[in-house]
Amino acid sequence: MIKILLNGCLGKMGQAVEACINEREDTMISCGVDIADGDKAYPVYTCFYDVQEKPDVIIDFSNPLVLDDMLAFAVKNQTPVIICTTGFSDAQVQKIKDTAKQIPVFYSGNMSLGINVLIALSKMAAKVLYNSFDIEVVEKHHNLKIDAPSGTALMIADAINEEIGGAQYVYDRHAYRKRREHNEIGIHSIRGGTIVGEHEVIFAGHDEVVSLKHQAQSKGVFAAGAVNAAAYMKDKPAGLYDMSDVLKG
Amino acid sequence: MIKILLNGCLGKMGQAVEACINEREDTMISCGVDIADGDKAYPVYTCFYDVQEKPDVIIDFSNPLVLDDMLAFAVKNQTPVIICTTGFSDAQVQKIKDTAKQIPVFYSGNMSLGINVLIALSKMAAKVLYNSFDIEVVEKHHNLKIDAPSGTALMIADAINEEIGGAQYVYDRHAYRKRREHNEIGIHSIRGGTIVGEHEVIFAGHDEVVSLKHQAQSKGVFAAGAVNAAAYMKDKPAGLYDMSDVLKG
Amino acid sequence: MIKILLNGCLGKMGQAVEACINEREDTMISCGVDIADGDKAYPVYTCFYDVQEKPDVIIDFSNPLVLDDMLAFAVKNQTPVIICTTGFSDAQVQKIKDTAKQIPVFYSGNMSLGINVLIALSKMAAKVLYNSFDIEVVEKHHNLKIDAPSGTALMIADAINEEIGGAQYVYDRHAYRKRREHNEIGIHSIRGGTIVGEHEVIFAGHDEVVSLKHQAQSKGVFAAGAVNAAAYMKDKPAGLYDMSDVLKG
Amino acid sequence: MIKILLNGCLGKMGQAVEACINEREDTMISCGVDIADGDKAYPVYTCFYDVQEKPDVIIDFSNPLVLDDMLAFAVKNQTPVIICTTGFSDAQVQKIKDTAKQIPVFYSGNMSLGINVLIALSKMAAKVLYNSFDIEVVEKHHNLKIDAPSGTALMIADAINEEIGGAQYVYDRHAYRKRREHNEIGIHSIRGGTIVGEHEVIFAGHDEVVSLKHQAQSKGVFAAGAVNAAAYMKDKPAGLYDMSDVLKG
Repeated sequence: MIKILLNGCLGKMGQAVEACINEREDTMISCGVDIADGDKAYPVYTCFYDVQEKPDVIIDFSNPLVLDDMLAFAVKNQTPVIICTTGFSDAQVQKIKDTAKQIPVFYSGNMSLGINVLIALSKMAAKVLYNSFDIEVVEKHHNLKIDAPSGTALMIADAINEEIGGAQYVYDRHAYRKRREHNEIGIHSIRGGTIVGEHEVIFAGHDEVVSLKHQAQSKGVFAAGAVNAAAYMKDKPAGLYDMSDVLKG
Repeated sequence: MIKILLNGCLGKMGQAVEACINEREDTMISCGVDIADGDKAYPVYTCFYDVQEKPDVIIDFSNPLVLDDMLAFAVKNQTPVIICTTGFSDAQVQKIKDTAKQIPVFYSGNMSLGINVLIALSKMAAKVLYNSFDIEVVEKHHNLKIDAPSGTALMIADAINEEIGGAQYVYDRHAYRKRREHNEIGIHSIRGGTIVGEHEVIFAGHDEVVSLKHQAQSKGVFAAGAVNAAAYMKDKPAGLYDMSDVLKG
Repeated sequence: MIKILLNGCLGKMGQAVEACINEREDTMISCGVDIADGDKAYPVYTCFYDVQEKPDVIIDFSNPLVLDDMLAFAVKNQTPVIICTTGFSDAQVQKIKDTAKQIPVFYSGNMSLGINVLIALSKMAAKVLYNSFDIEVVEKHHNLKIDAPSGTALMIADAINEEIGGAQYVYDRHAYRKRREHNEIGIHSIRGGTIVGEHEVIFAGHDEVVSLKHQAQSKGVFAAGAVNAAAYMKDKPAGLYDMSDVLKG
Repeated sequence: MIKILLNGCLGKMGQAVEACINEREDTMISCGVDIADGDKAYPVYTCFYDVQEKPDVIIDFSNPLVLDDMLAFAVKNQTPVIICTTGFSDAQVQKIKDTAKQIPVFYSGNMSLGINVLIALSKMAAKVLYNSFDIEVVEKHHNLKIDAPSGTALMIADAINEEIGGAQYVYDRHAYRKRREHNEIGIHSIRGGTIVGEHEVIFAGHDEVVSLKHQAQSKGVFAAGAVNAAAYMKDKPAGLYDMSDVLKG
């Protein structure tokens, strides 16, 4: 049984993670941390300094503000930590990487298994096809999302660019009247309704098109990915891990 | 047998129209007009003043420069004209509309039957769904196309706006960090390979999405639409016609 | 305020309807009926004979077995009834239609607004395109669904057949080695994962394809449709209604 | 300059290959073989015994009946052969494999680069996802195709089955009333209009779907693949090759 400390346990994602942990037979929540007050079947602390339990793994879906306290707790207890919070500053990302020298840290831009498969396949396809195919990325999200493109769309484009090099990201073709350059990656952000998240990579060649698509139906996919990562990280040595490690098995 | 004068008979679209006319049993080319020189099984003139034949219908896939001569010829002979050329100035569009008071003129932004069905369905869907759904348009074309969005994507958006009113076209969400307004119509231009043309209208609502899509596999669909229009226009009274008239039967 | 009796209030769909009613400001649940026992903020009866309240509308997501009791109650109280239960026998469907002579009855094979728009658009497209396009229907659902094709896929095919006439439904092309007949409507049932429901109608013509698609992200769309129908049906005269009446406004 | 003997030079695919060869600067047709009579800019023989030229590579888009003569010619002249003909008997396939011990033989079920990438990606995805995702294959072709499913759909399913083992192909869910088994691969054949060829592999998991799609816009993709293979095969040692060798570079 893997005992998990859930940081951000009262938020939307925290509750999705809790549901996911309860569905599995090999995981349980030993305690939660959240700046808000709330009743749970497990102890909930407003601050890491008060935590009594010694968990096997920490799952973090909270707020960049809590990062320092959480890492201090994790280092002191030598607990692996799964960081799913987003919006860190560059300095904070550097701190996460530095901390990975002392404890096992899992840090992935997107926690869904499917998205990480999409990224791996896109790299593989780009490598073989880029010579004679053009590459475009289309993402769809709900109408409340304020940033565009999605962080995941950029992750995908960056991963492709690791293979092909020299890509130029293009967000608007309306403003120019010119031919597409081969090194462009058009990135298109569709917004509407309650779409949870869809990402498609299009490879358009001479009379043929290959396209790779991921559709998320609920935020549960990110929660499931986090719990999978927790199970994977238990008892791992210090180091920086991400979903590509889980994919390798 | 419908005798057709094909203006622009030596161009790519002209040749597609010729193939289409030859496939049908009720249509034939009586002569062609083209500024270029070329050999055909039918007489080809470089100028409308030299034309000897009196066709039943004119199909025009040529160049805005030829508009005046063609309309003068059509009015003199009282010949219906199917105008498929694009890129007219506002003054030229006005002249086309004025000429329709004297002779039957067919003028449609897109000649494909499927595209015109897409537009009709999009209007109908927008009317019923706009209240609780967001609307976005995605178009895909080959990597040599220099304008964006496609004229057809704008036709679709304009047709939707006739139903909903007050739409704001948005071409780039990358530049802003804000929520989607309900009256936005996002228009996205994907470019790659040799894609002939694809248009999709997305209606995204609360936990459901309706999407309407048209894919063209070859430029032949525009030629076929033009020849259909020619058959429809023979012996029609003066007036301005478009594909929605053909759809009504 | 529209007071609703919710039949099948403890089931999955009943709970989705309850959530939907609570979100709106013009609707409330006055009581529920369910063969199971359960605690709710409103009175729950196991049998219609015990109901004390006089609701404005009944929403029914229950079981064919309860039909007779529910209709007797509705007729006695002259209450409009929204029937969303599926799996009725032919005799029961006839009884529903007969009862609509005495009270307002709303009976629709699928309660989603989007699906009903899809059906209306498919009919319109079939009318114009069938002459030169082939029609196919593809539906996708989760891996627990035991019937195929979905009732909604059949609704779509039947609606199209009302336009074109003489359609032949084809479920398997593997067993034969022959050309497609023009009057075939291929119906394909994809099953996998937790897909809530996706229906696509494909019109494939000469070098162009028009396709119309609906994707449901949660069962909430059916609940929302039922509550919309309830608001629409309050104070309507006796008669048989369905979603196409709501679409007309 | 690679000198190519084109077997089946007067057929539709032969002409597509010819167009493709003429577009490249490193390839030319030295002669053609075809059982039909026809005039070409290069010598055309009705029989391999009459061929005077000694080509660098043979491309074969002909008929299973010509296999023996062609292989005899290729062995005698030690010429690499690209076999794109389909419909061979098991014995003929065995002969092709045996002949590959004497000369370089390229034999691939589908000659498109994109399709072969799709197959490689599908295998990779199946390996990682099969544990928690269901797999389905959908293919679309024109209304004249008499076999179903397409040979390429079976190639894809077989390639996936190499990874997952024990798959059961299911062509019709209409006939049964039962839950999907996890080891099923549903294979669905959509037929309509002039669709050149589309193949999609769907991985449906818990609240997420990954899908991989290939669309061919013209038969030119198979011709281009054959000419690419010819360029790849020039001066290769004896052995059996397929598109996965070209993918590896």
